[in-house]
Amino acid sequence: MPPLITLTTDFGLSDEYVGVMKGVIHSHCPDAVIVDLTHNVRPQDIRQAAIILAASYRFFPKGSIHLIVVDPGVGTSRRIVLLQTDKQLFLLPDNGTATLLPPPEAAYEVTEKHLFLSPVSRTFHGRDIFAPVAAHLACGLLPEQTGCRIDPDSLVRLPFPPLQKKGKRLRGSVIDIDHFGNLITNIDRKTAENFFPDSVHRLIVSIGSLSLQGISSSYGSVLPGRPVALFGSRDYLEISINRGNCAQTMQVKLDSNVYLSIQ
Amino acid sequence: MPPLITLTTDFGLSDEYVGVMKGVIHSHCPDAVIVDLTHNVRPQDIRQAAIILAASYRFFPKGSIHLIVVDPGVGTSRRIVLLQTDKQLFLLPDNGTATLLPPPEAAYEVTEKHLFLSPVSRTFHGRDIFAPVAAHLACGLLPEQTGCRIDPDSLVRLPFPPLQKKGKRLRGSVIDIDHFGNLITNIDRKTAENFFPDSVHRLIVSIGSLSLQGISSSYGSVLPGRPVALFGSRDYLEISINRGNCAQTMQVKLDSNVYLSIQ
Amino acid sequence: MPPLITLTTDFGLSDEYVGVMKGVIHSHCPDAVIVDLTHNVRPQDIRQAAIILAASYRFFPKGSIHLIVVDPGVGTSRRIVLLQTDKQLFLLPDNGTATLLPPPEAAYEVTEKHLFLSPVSRTFHGRDIFAPVAAHLACGLLPEQTGCRIDPDSLVRLPFPPLQKKGKRLRGSVIDIDHFGNLITNIDRKTAENFFPDSVHRLIVSIGSLSLQGISSSYGSVLPGRPVALFGSRDYLEISINRGNCAQTMQVKLDSNVYLSIQ
Repeated sequence: MPPLITLTTDFGLSDEYVGVMKGVIHSHCPDAVIVDLTHNVRPQDIRQAAIILAASYRFFPKGSIHLIVVDPGVGTSRRIVLLQTDKQLFLLPDNGTATLLPPPEAAYEVTEKHLFLSPVSRTFHGRDIFAPVAAHLACGLLPEQTGCRIDPDSLVRLPFPPLQKKGKRLRGSVIDIDHFGNLITNIDRKTAENFFPDSVHRLIVSIGSLSLQGISSSYGSVLPGRPVALFGSRDYLEISINRGNCAQTMQVKLDSNVYLSIQ
Repeated sequence: MPPLITLTTDFGLSDEYVGVMKGVIHSHCPDAVIVDLTHNVRPQDIRQAAIILAASYRFFPKGSIHLIVVDPGVGTSRRIVLLQTDKQLFLLPDNGTATLLPPPEAAYEVTEKHLFLSPVSRTFHGRDIFAPVAAHLACGLLPEQTGCRIDPDSLVRLPFPPLQKKGKRLRGSVIDIDHFGNLITNIDRKTAENFFPDSVHRLIVSIGSLSLQGISSSYGSVLPGRPVALFGSRDYLEISINRGNCAQTMQVKLDSNVYLSIQ
Repeated sequence: MPPLITLTTDFGLSDEYVGVMKGVIHSHCPDAVIVDLTHNVRPQDIRQAAIILAASYRFFPKGSIHLIVVDPGVGTSRRIVLLQTDKQLFLLPDNGTATLLPPPEAAYEVTEKHLFLSPVSRTFHGRDIFAPVAAHLACGLLPEQTGCRIDPDSLVRLPFPPLQKKGKRLRGSVIDIDHFGNLITNIDRKTAENFFPDSVHRLIVSIGSLSLQGISSSYGSVLPGRPVALFGSRDYLEISINRGNCAQTMQVKLDSNVYLSIQ
């Protein structure tokens, strides 16, 4: 059985674009198994793609091929790259999508045109380049057969907002809002525990005019309709409303500041 | 070939949550076949999940494993249960999702921690418990190996609004509105036929200020833009607008009353 | 391995309808591989289904079975037909969905009731007729075993707006708006090149008050936020905004006129 291919795009599900990519994959590797991570990345939002990819890859089997096409530079000179870690492959435009992944063991610029559909359009490389290359890899092509090896340090990196540490206060920001309206911050559990050793139970989480005492362990630890802070499934600090939609209720936007301090 | 696994959640399709569950399933059972029932159950709407599940399971092959995660109590003390009928398995939180299913032949509380991911988060049991347990079942684990047998009568049941029978009138309500804006009621064909023997052609369906004479057999039996009542694909009374959106046009909400009476 | 089945519907992804069709397919052909083209065709929009199908089929392997259910006439006397080209099969209601496909080598009216679910509802032929017939075809049933051969010339055809050629000007219209807000016209590359030989670089594209000089090759050939005209992945003239949403920004609707003329 060939390795699994995951797909992450901003193509949405209204057009035929995702389905056509799968048609191309199955044309080249009939028994490929394809899993959609999501196709609803906000259009051209490379940062969101990077976050979703980083939160996902380790739950997939060894050998999985992750194909990500959030690619506002399609048809321009941006590179298409293949990153190889000890366990998995990542095929993506070199635009920062890989910023939150562990450093790859090897990286390649994908240039072997005989692997592509012909002709290659300048508007839909997902179909014409990414899909057939992923299919060839799933059916046995070696990474080094896709193009020239490149220096992983040459890959484009996104500037992610850093955590700011000031006295007894940690400042982060809302970097994602999920389907439930949970506010997902860039404050990870490890950093918080290191910055506030032995005092997680006395922490105060603040955003806008809201201040929450203590970090809970589940949404249901507060009454329905009440706000709660917890470390979510991605191990980042989240602010939620139990059985409600926090982003809508509190009118919070992406990039809002979030503060973690001690009582 | 392992049995098919269906997924029903309120996770939406914007985040990586559903894809990650599939990654976990394929990690434990590589050739599992997974079918999405829907991931757009309204957030935390257990009743909608129960309706969708009841309308679906019998169209799946014998041996199918139905995994349902509409789970506002995640991380609290609610049980995770496995229900076994003569033909299929249902893995779900014990919160009423199973209310409309036939009584199971056996039920288990899923407690065998060695089957779970480690560590288990308290916010995403879909990934950490439901997905790996379903995968193990698909790959041969027996239901009784997931935990202790429990009394099916102990399962949480949702209070579904009963049909009210009064003289020559049957009162039900709109319990679902589908993608087309069709109003789906809780009046099933059998009950209607028993209550009004030999007179289905003389029935009057009323909702709000709308009154429809007779029950049709297809949307197209009335002109485009006209309302029509019929027994839909779930065998429940539906009120629709041919080639239109009834819920939007008539501004009808869930739980509105619907009356069935005789001329 | 059985041939691939694609699904295209207007069922949306909120209800169980698509999942149930897959359950029926797997019940009759357990190892079928199913690919969703899209389930978000606008409700009852046969023209959009025809466009999507025409843009997609050739990217699928030989032998693929394309199942399309955009079917406002479900339960009425419209025919269900199976079209056979040299490479693929198309199973669809005879309502114009096939208008943009190449002429089939053979066509059949699907009438063999023993292939259907029993009973057949009059509201959900996707589940009761299309899904089981596609599954039987995937598992070896011959096209001629589905019903009587019919004359391909008898198939319903949609009236697509023709291109208007007047002096040195070509008039088309916006026939689709995709997820990115790109305006997709019915002016195809070949027609444009034939009408304006050797002068594609001097063309002017006009829509509403917008006039664009020259046809670009990629979205990124203009600055972010700027409009651009190019031949898109379907080989039709598109008007887009680089990293923006053209339809929203310009408030353009389906069927708006688009003009191509020469400087």
